[in-house]
Amino acid sequence: MSEFIRETTDLLRRTPDLLRTLLHELPPTWADTPDVEGGWGPKDVVGHLITGEQTDWIARTKRILEHGTTQPFDRFDRFAHAERDVDASLDELIDRFAAVRTENLRRLGELAKEEDLDRRGLHPSLGEVTLRELLATWSVHDLDHVSQIFAGMAGSRDADVGPWKAYLGILLRRDDPAAVPG
Amino acid sequence: MSEFIRETTDLLRRTPDLLRTLLHELPPTWADTPDVEGGWGPKDVVGHLITGEQTDWIARTKRILEHGTTQPFDRFDRFAHAERDVDASLDELIDRFAAVRTENLRRLGELAKEEDLDRRGLHPSLGEVTLRELLATWSVHDLDHVSQIFAGMAGSRDADVGPWKAYLGILLRRDDPAAVPG
Repeated sequence: MSEFIRETTDLLRRTPDLLRTLLHELPPTWADTPDVEGGWGPKDVVGHLITGEQTDWIARTKRILEHGTTQPFDRFDRFAHAERDVDASLDELIDRFAAVRTENLRRLGELAKEEDLDRRGLHPSLGEVTLRELLATWSVHDLDHVSQIFAGMAGSRDADVGPWKAYLGILLRRDDPAAVPG
Repeated sequence: MSEFIRETTDLLRRTPDLLRTLLHELPPTWADTPDVEGGWGPKDVVGHLITGEQTDWIARTKRILEHGTTQPFDRFDRFAHAERDVDASLDELIDRFAAVRTENLRRLGELAKEEDLDRRGLHPSLGEVTLRELLATWSVHDLDHVSQIFAGMAGSRDADVGPWKAYLGILLRRDDPAAVPG
């Protein structure tokens, strides 16, 4: 396994445990606020991550390896989780995510080799992309969405911090994204 | 213990494990990029969290309970970690943070009661604040700084994601905070 695949896998393997550590049996008042108005709470994020495991990352890896740029990727349904997960608890979703992630990392280890990383596929909107870019995006996509959970959790205490809000970029950004970098 | 203190403590107790899950033996290429240019990497963040445990949260709790608004809080040194931690590894810092956090939550449980939450202290810049606001800020401050680690980790793969960067708010915000809410 290449250094790049090994390092990417190392991060991807941590995310289910990270979600468990953050969210397992968390008091509900920490988990009832979306990252921004009309945005996503923890259940939406974990559901979205499950959809990615089911329909995106490994399917696109195979598409690149089997069809190159001759057959574009299927489009990703960003809202597939909304109806599908309505009866599932957050802890159930995290368990489901952990199971599909583990299986997908096993499959990735079988599918992708160092010499495949520059092979190209066709994204339906972005055009040509490489397998390396797909795998890097898989890992950054995890970080992006777990951050979204943090923003919602912080938002659940927005009114409680009083004047300290002026120092808390994670809260200022929810109101005005231009308020503070990060 | 009040519901508010219990729920706040519940989150604060998770942060050391969260940092371990995210960072323990992480390949160094994931941890060498700051959240924004001139910003902080994981070692800075964990060092800063240690300083908070050593000089801020419990000291200010005691100041409120013992002196009310008659004696302002000491100012917080946001850069105390820089020289102090220069020889420590990231894993060593996480262990130190876990130890002081555990001890401080034990002390908080002894010090603060439900009926104390509206008691007031004097912040040197922000003016009057309540114990409830201090404790809420302690927890949101954790979320804010762990998010900062996520931003740096994502930034370490900024060049690798190729055209997908257009969809990754966590990367877009590093270049232009107004790019995307969250």
